[in-house]
Amino acid sequence: MNNITNLKTLLSPRTIAVIGATNKDGSIGRIIFENLLTSGRPLFPVHPKEKEILGVKVFPGIKELPDGIDLAVIVTGAENSVAAALECANKCIPYIIVVAGGFSEIGPQGKELEDRLKEIKVKFGSRILGPNTLGIFVPRERINTIFVEHGDKALAGGGKIAFITQSGSVGIEALGLASNTGFGLRVFVGLGNKCDLDELDFLRYFAEDKDTDCIALYVENLGHGRKFLAAAKEASLVKPVVLLKAGQTPAGARAVMSHTGRLAGSNEVVDGALRQYGILRVFDDEELCDAAKTLVMCPPAKGNRVAIITPGGGYGVMGSDHIETNRGVAGLSMAELSHATRECIREATLPFASCRNPVDLTASTTDEMYGATLDAALDDDGVDIVICAVFFSPPAVSAVLIAEIAQRAAESAKPVIAFTKYGPFTDLYLRRFYDAGVVGFPSISRAVKAARFLVERAGLISAIRE
Amino acid sequence: MNNITNLKTLLSPRTIAVIGATNKDGSIGRIIFENLLTSGRPLFPVHPKEKEILGVKVFPGIKELPDGIDLAVIVTGAENSVAAALECANKCIPYIIVVAGGFSEIGPQGKELEDRLKEIKVKFGSRILGPNTLGIFVPRERINTIFVEHGDKALAGGGKIAFITQSGSVGIEALGLASNTGFGLRVFVGLGNKCDLDELDFLRYFAEDKDTDCIALYVENLGHGRKFLAAAKEASLVKPVVLLKAGQTPAGARAVMSHTGRLAGSNEVVDGALRQYGILRVFDDEELCDAAKTLVMCPPAKGNRVAIITPGGGYGVMGSDHIETNRGVAGLSMAELSHATRECIREATLPFASCRNPVDLTASTTDEMYGATLDAALDDDGVDIVICAVFFSPPAVSAVLIAEIAQRAAESAKPVIAFTKYGPFTDLYLRRFYDAGVVGFPSISRAVKAARFLVERAGLISAIRE
Repeated sequence: MNNITNLKTLLSPRTIAVIGATNKDGSIGRIIFENLLTSGRPLFPVHPKEKEILGVKVFPGIKELPDGIDLAVIVTGAENSVAAALECANKCIPYIIVVAGGFSEIGPQGKELEDRLKEIKVKFGSRILGPNTLGIFVPRERINTIFVEHGDKALAGGGKIAFITQSGSVGIEALGLASNTGFGLRVFVGLGNKCDLDELDFLRYFAEDKDTDCIALYVENLGHGRKFLAAAKEASLVKPVVLLKAGQTPAGARAVMSHTGRLAGSNEVVDGALRQYGILRVFDDEELCDAAKTLVMCPPAKGNRVAIITPGGGYGVMGSDHIETNRGVAGLSMAELSHATRECIREATLPFASCRNPVDLTASTTDEMYGATLDAALDDDGVDIVICAVFFSPPAVSAVLIAEIAQRAAESAKPVIAFTKYGPFTDLYLRRFYDAGVVGFPSISRAVKAARFLVERAGLISAIRE
Repeated sequence: MNNITNLKTLLSPRTIAVIGATNKDGSIGRIIFENLLTSGRPLFPVHPKEKEILGVKVFPGIKELPDGIDLAVIVTGAENSVAAALECANKCIPYIIVVAGGFSEIGPQGKELEDRLKEIKVKFGSRILGPNTLGIFVPRERINTIFVEHGDKALAGGGKIAFITQSGSVGIEALGLASNTGFGLRVFVGLGNKCDLDELDFLRYFAEDKDTDCIALYVENLGHGRKFLAAAKEASLVKPVVLLKAGQTPAGARAVMSHTGRLAGSNEVVDGALRQYGILRVFDDEELCDAAKTLVMCPPAKGNRVAIITPGGGYGVMGSDHIETNRGVAGLSMAELSHATRECIREATLPFASCRNPVDLTASTTDEMYGATLDAALDDDGVDIVICAVFFSPPAVSAVLIAEIAQRAAESAKPVIAFTKYGPFTDLYLRRFYDAGVVGFPSISRAVKAARFLVERAGLISAIRE
């Protein structure tokens, strides 16, 4: 625990100062202040001219603030932010979020400003998140400094995923889309320019956090290669660490552990190195969200044998193709159903259903037949994971099937992954699966990839435990 | 033209008999009859007991029908369908669609019934689509026998893609989802059990059809391997042929050209064979729809050099990674922007924008800056394809940017592909791009894949023209 920055005060502050809060509609200072009001914590807005914002008394300057404030969110321009951060540190505020851009990302001039922020930690011990960040969002605590958001209320659905992103844009766009079908967030952290707090601090903290079941990271550069890998390995022993390290190609940064503690090397070497440290690697933000969602919603896979249940033969065939093609890291195979399982399915379904894997129940299936088939597949010792293709066009299939599948998934120790398409209602029905506790995807390839993530995670953990 | 079945009468019949039309709400006979009513063609419902359906006089039997009917849609059970098809053939109705399942797909008993359907073509010359099919949907002609649909009105958006599917379920689910963001359909054909008309007939017909710009096929087994490949090659010379051949893995059927005229062999051999005949191969229904949509909406790619414009650096990096990883068949490369282009972008944008490819305009970009950057990229001789990442969170980006991009895409001979995420509004904004004439996708990996389809198509066509 010695190395761990105790971020509890940042993520659950008792009192918050908002430097640059204003009454101006649509301004960032107003949006963030309003967001934080819903946290129910005492807020201390600071503005030289405003007297009151939404009924809260405004302080004219930072030095007029009372002592004992846990977190200062600074929402002014770059230059003023540096001065404000210094004053906050002087007031012994332990955590500071600097929202403004205009620092190292814009060139030498900004870099100089950022260096001045860096000194603050050294001189005063206050810790800084940012600059150039959307800050944090902790649904359970109603702490939210994100000033652009279009997951609407969906993002607020609390959960077990710690989502840590160097790019605010990637974070918001990825989560915004993922939230349409449900995404359980423990916390969103925008790292920004990482003048102080970085992925290593958060990785270490959330590794020990009981409310976090999966750590998902988007990073463009890793500050402490070796320490990060070591911390990831430790974290991986207890929960999945999913990493999207952008910039792997010759055009971008290179990465693998080396003496310098920086990551560099060919993609294959990186793959190997990351795997050695228990890190599940993904290649875009859709995979990052899919992997995290799957890993928190499903029990571990005990093996790589997948059964597919489908009311449409075509998707069974496509699913088999994806499973056996094995382009990904984790090899999957089509489960061979036992004689007993096949007989069980035969008895429960229509005479022309195909009882081998993929199990094709045909469009004449009913909810009951589907449920009985899922029971049989989950009972089969030769099956490790079940993918349920669910379509609502067959006349005897209803939304009740969602509950039927959810109940069996909840009772089984084996992962169940849903795949559904339903025209304009696709997201709505995926959301219903999510609300019922079943992870679901709108394409067979993403459903198969989800199975792969589970098998890969199982392989990683057994490798690092050796 | 000798080999081509003239399917015009099937796709644009002047008169249609509906055998088994009823007044019963929700029945297939009623749904199909209602669908066909909107075609404005004279309809001739046949039912032993009904007198009138939706104001149209009902005929008690097929033999009571007037002469000269172009198409009979049979909506009765399997057994009765065979008898009805025979009577229709006796009446010299040239095209018959048999909707019912319960034929070869259910085993030997059904196979026998299907054999009797097969004889009809031989004895009478009437052509049969099906059995076990959703039939056809021709948006422009308002001819629609699809009785399950959840693309809602979206599917009805006419266009240039002939979508031919052996599996009705795959067709409906794939198009239902694809339609959310726009999908231009010339025709949907459900092949069903292919007792007579099959993919070869339709491939040949749509190859010569002036209203078809792309032929997309989902097939599980190819009836005439060699003839199909030859026809595909001929078609490919004038329009893209995209094939999803399900069942490629050991678990499924095997496929490549052989003496038997059947397709069999390892995946790699199949890949090579299909490519040799100009066929663009895809691996699931999402790819099938994405490829077809991209190929009809974009001009041909002259090369493989891709430029990315983005308001968020992260997506530029991820896009570069996807482009340079080159896991797919068609190799892509990141375009190197000329000095002049970079200067042009520098002048038009903010000082801290990154003017190399990927061009990162940052979240401070405006619609105008974006437009000027796209102009510069399209003017650069070193750029073959432009991917525009568009997000609507940046404060100075508005929906106007869609029109700005669309105008430039329309005026350029180079493909422009949009990528956008916008939380719950993602599909809506992709649809806006579509309506403006720009192909768009909700993930960077699908946008890059779209570029790959264009480059692959260009490679295929130059190979077969040699």
